Amino acid sequence: MSKEDNITSWFASQSFADAAAFPIGIGDDMAQVRGGADGTVLITTDMLLDGVHFDLSACTLEQAAYKAMAASLSDCAGMATVPICAVVAVALPSGFGENELKRIHAGIVDAGRRYQCELIGGDITKWRNPEGRFAINVTMLSKPSGHHPPVRRNGAKPGDVICMTGSLGGSIAGKHLDFTPRVAEALEITKAAQIHAMMDITDGLSTDLNRMCKQSGVGAELLAADIPISDVAAQKENPLDRALHDGEDFELLFTLSPDEYEKLPQLEKVPIAKIGTVTSSGRMELKQPDGRVVMLTPKGFDHL
Amino acid sequence: MSKEDNITSWFASQSFADAAAFPIGIGDDMAQVRGGADGTVLITTDMLLDGVHFDLSACTLEQAAYKAMAASLSDCAGMATVPICAVVAVALPSGFGENELKRIHAGIVDAGRRYQCELIGGDITKWRNPEGRFAINVTMLSKPSGHHPPVRRNGAKPGDVICMTGSLGGSIAGKHLDFTPRVAEALEITKAAQIHAMMDITDGLSTDLNRMCKQSGVGAELLAADIPISDVAAQKENPLDRALHDGEDFELLFTLSPDEYEKLPQLEKVPIAKIGTVTSSGRMELKQPDGRVVMLTPKGFDHL
Repeated sequence: MSKEDNITSWFASQSFADAAAFPIGIGDDMAQVRGGADGTVLITTDMLLDGVHFDLSACTLEQAAYKAMAASLSDCAGMATVPICAVVAVALPSGFGENELKRIHAGIVDAGRRYQCELIGGDITKWRNPEGRFAINVTMLSKPSGHHPPVRRNGAKPGDVICMTGSLGGSIAGKHLDFTPRVAEALEITKAAQIHAMMDITDGLSTDLNRMCKQSGVGAELLAADIPISDVAAQKENPLDRALHDGEDFELLFTLSPDEYEKLPQLEKVPIAKIGTVTSSGRMELKQPDGRVVMLTPKGFDHL
Repeated sequence: MSKEDNITSWFASQSFADAAAFPIGIGDDMAQVRGGADGTVLITTDMLLDGVHFDLSACTLEQAAYKAMAASLSDCAGMATVPICAVVAVALPSGFGENELKRIHAGIVDAGRRYQCELIGGDITKWRNPEGRFAINVTMLSKPSGHHPPVRRNGAKPGDVICMTGSLGGSIAGKHLDFTPRVAEALEITKAAQIHAMMDITDGLSTDLNRMCKQSGVGAELLAADIPISDVAAQKENPLDRALHDGEDFELLFTLSPDEYEKLPQLEKVPIAKIGTVTSSGRMELKQPDGRVVMLTPKGFDHL
């Protein structure tokens, strides 16, 4: 058996995928997956690179793989959908082999099993050039929750309350590697209230809110004093800027009517903050503590 | 708008995805996809690397992207399923921008549209190290055909006829970049006859047949004289070895009972060859033209 077949068999032996949900598992040309009760699935794909999204000289392979899975789980959360499974493809540097693959596998299942998200297939490739660095691509499937349609970015309405979970800024100090995707929270929120628009905050609040506004054809006014700043960002210069523009917070951003806002639950693990209002201005604005209103420009992460 | 948002909008503007099949398209946290009539989808993921699966110093970006899509389409063919859509993630070398992304997009839709396979989402990342090379990851969804269950690798039975489409060997000379995934052929074959096991030949006949035998718990006897050798391989030394062990032919390998074999159609674009018999020996054997039987060992491509 080839080395590749050996490790593929090992992966298959580690799978506890339920045959009813996954009629065909690891080891064939494709895996087969049962979708949601409405016959649909949702899909997201994310490529993470050594030296960009993590740094293998400063973190473990388990952490890198955990982050890759958690980033996709956070996309499932951003739509308030239920994770089903993932397929994971890796590009290995020369020198990587079975040991490294098992460590990557450990990080994947560590993240996935917290949300009953099965590893159901993948692909292993290896760079031939000696400088080739580790890349990991996670594609995840989820399904509608059954109690609320998948929540898009384009449904924000003037007058909506803008909310977010947790706090923002300075994720690079550590949170970006071990954050908790807000899967359970998104499901709990959408069970309690009708949500107009939702997404996860990955490229910075200013950039992601701008996307939501553009897609919804609305504007927004944020209240500077109400934006929750992480403890890490609070130690830095310009903590508010960190909270507005740093990326990889992986918190939820969502809007809902003031009436529905009253129905929001108290979440067990993370607070929900009301940070502003959707407007019809088409612009993003920031209301300072002294009452002055300034333009808010998107200054988050641009992958290009 | 960020450069990333600009190009994402452009991708979305190029999409003609039908809203009934794809309730949520490009530009959200996830796309939403309607699965097969039985409520399932099939999924495959493939990572292709510059310098391994293609060489950008000798081929175009369009060709590389076409190959990435066609390889996944070939997986859909290997299961005899109907392609639905793909999500594509790329890791760009420094210096790549909008122009290169549009060329990659052209290769993707060129391959996809031949099979009504929509590009429905993706991810763009960029290496920070100057040596970082182009990587492209395609994840594809398909659905059962409705007339035949997805065909696995593990169903080959002693006494089955072993068949394949087309001819083998020397794909590296050019075919590996512009092959035709046998999607239509797999559907036509499974419409006409009950197929026990099927896969696409990607890592070489000897390696892939070995996988089918192992998963089915069977052996195989191939007839050396009956294995179709490509014109390119026929020009080389040891043409049979090229046909047996070269990779990336992307032809179909399948087994079926002798009775069902009689029902196989004449395909329009590619011949079907009968190359051997499934045995209960558990071994792979090759019957030479002089009648001698030798062991056949898997010597195809090992990605590790």
